[in-house]
Amino acid sequence: MELEFLGTGAGMPSKQRNTSSLLLNLSAEKEGYWMFDCGEATQHQMLHTSIKPRKVNRIFITHLHGDHIFGLPGFLGSRSFLGGQEELTVYGPAGLKEWILSTLRLTKTHLTYPLTIVEISEGVVFENDRFKVLTKELQHVIPCFGYRIEQKPLPGKLLIDKAFEAGVPKGPLLKKLKDGEDVTLEDGTIVYSSNMTGDSQQGFIVTILGDTRICKSAVDLADHADILVHEATFDMETGELAKDYGHSTIGDAAMTAKKANVKVLIANHISARFMPGDISRLKEQGRTFFTELHIAEDFSSFEWKNGQLLKKQS
Amino acid sequence: MELEFLGTGAGMPSKQRNTSSLLLNLSAEKEGYWMFDCGEATQHQMLHTSIKPRKVNRIFITHLHGDHIFGLPGFLGSRSFLGGQEELTVYGPAGLKEWILSTLRLTKTHLTYPLTIVEISEGVVFENDRFKVLTKELQHVIPCFGYRIEQKPLPGKLLIDKAFEAGVPKGPLLKKLKDGEDVTLEDGTIVYSSNMTGDSQQGFIVTILGDTRICKSAVDLADHADILVHEATFDMETGELAKDYGHSTIGDAAMTAKKANVKVLIANHISARFMPGDISRLKEQGRTFFTELHIAEDFSSFEWKNGQLLKKQS
Ligand SMILES: [Zn+2]
Ligand SMILES: [Zn+2]
Repeated sequence: MELEFLGTGAGMPSKQRNTSSLLLNLSAEKEGYWMFDCGEATQHQMLHTSIKPRKVNRIFITHLHGDHIFGLPGFLGSRSFLGGQEELTVYGPAGLKEWILSTLRLTKTHLTYPLTIVEISEGVVFENDRFKVLTKELQHVIPCFGYRIEQKPLPGKLLIDKAFEAGVPKGPLLKKLKDGEDVTLEDGTIVYSSNMTGDSQQGFIVTILGDTRICKSAVDLADHADILVHEATFDMETGELAKDYGHSTIGDAAMTAKKANVKVLIANHISARFMPGDISRLKEQGRTFFTELHIAEDFSSFEWKNGQLLKKQS
Repeated sequence: MELEFLGTGAGMPSKQRNTSSLLLNLSAEKEGYWMFDCGEATQHQMLHTSIKPRKVNRIFITHLHGDHIFGLPGFLGSRSFLGGQEELTVYGPAGLKEWILSTLRLTKTHLTYPLTIVEISEGVVFENDRFKVLTKELQHVIPCFGYRIEQKPLPGKLLIDKAFEAGVPKGPLLKKLKDGEDVTLEDGTIVYSSNMTGDSQQGFIVTILGDTRICKSAVDLADHADILVHEATFDMETGELAKDYGHSTIGDAAMTAKKANVKVLIANHISARFMPGDISRLKEQGRTFFTELHIAEDFSSFEWKNGQLLKKQS
């Protein structure tokens, strides 16, 4: 699992930071790429990566402010223009469907792939064998949601020597045991998968929040997450502005990470008022509350591997 | 008058060319900046110029395809976010008003300035003392318009020595004469402005077209224009595709320039299939029909001065 930040700015694009978008790379988990928010020029940012639009099969929108969705029509159109055939599902708050459909209609944009738009409410918004995505409403100036992505427990490793001892031959039966299926040998012996596999492994939890002031829902969504992605539009000196505009300071983000007992916090949605030189000061402010804190830049890429966060580039 | 190209690509952004937008700089003519089309990330392109969004007071949209309008909501929002108070008028085909208003409504974008949206049909869409803008429908796959911007004749220069000879004193009367007003001197003598000013000077004509296949309306709009901005999505080898998709080849653009007797042709809306190295070949193809041909790049800037086109940068 990897997180690739395409846009880490707030409100408006600047030369340093584009408006919000990040990709959750679940290729290794066979889920492709999931996008979270799609600010204007997200497709332009992707031109500077190796990721093709058709690889993105789910888009989760936190709220309908322009800096989180104005790249969506262009992304949908270009994904089609580039010959994408793979189904795409977009999740987001009420109003999203009307906006996307009226935009496609009025601009005569015809898509070459099936598009499903799911308007969400609190609870489970997606679930399959491998993942479950839950959402809760945060506290912003308009309805805004956070997403908690839970990987389901992974089947334990096949104890291959034990299987051979039990008389299981090389070949397809081994794969069945590994996948949790019991098998019957030629002599009629039943070999139970549970006896031939190790303990199941816990999956990871990533929580990706939209714009919010500090609130309990954020803590709930982030509870014991491995990674929390949290906005930090303001610094400690501008905490009043944060409250007024329904945003968080770097301190709010760090407090939430601490209360929720997450392993790592990655802050994004950084105001253009902060110059590159201010970032170390923001980090210091946040780390007085929670030490495992990173601030994402555009094109920052983090890998989650063996319970550790690896910063791939910045 | 200057033309500043912000996006010169076709259909989708590429690393070389953004989707369509250009600025007509009429600051010297006291009209501010007029924008023609506003593809996604036009506001991002403007970050690399010295032009502030509030300086743009009119936006003319040629048609509702995404590559010509998906930057509009973000531009409108950022113009507000940056404290713009100056009125803005947007002109474009039917459907534009519904799209802009529903987008602003659903994304809760509140503007700090008065916005007027004018849905156009053929004829005069704007006129004041200094300029007249006419439009005609072109031939694309959806309704698409071209704009002809005519500067009105400039008052002749004040013949100052002749005015002094006639007894006009230094001061406000001279300005009145210059502005076309007749004046009465203290001794009762009437001095006629027409006698004290030189011949009026012809204004310039710029024609800026939207996407189109070769057609008579394009020639009409460009008739004896000083500058024609014309799309050239295809080369001579892909003329059939051009016809199918309602576009022009570089040859079509050049033929239209020739038929319309324009002074200079600037081609834009160049397909991403053409690499930077192909551009000289495209120029050659076009110049077999019309020699005064330029191909715009993103951030190309042209000044029109004393009846001549000066390329400012590229
Ligand atoms: Zn935001
Ligand atoms: Zn176009």
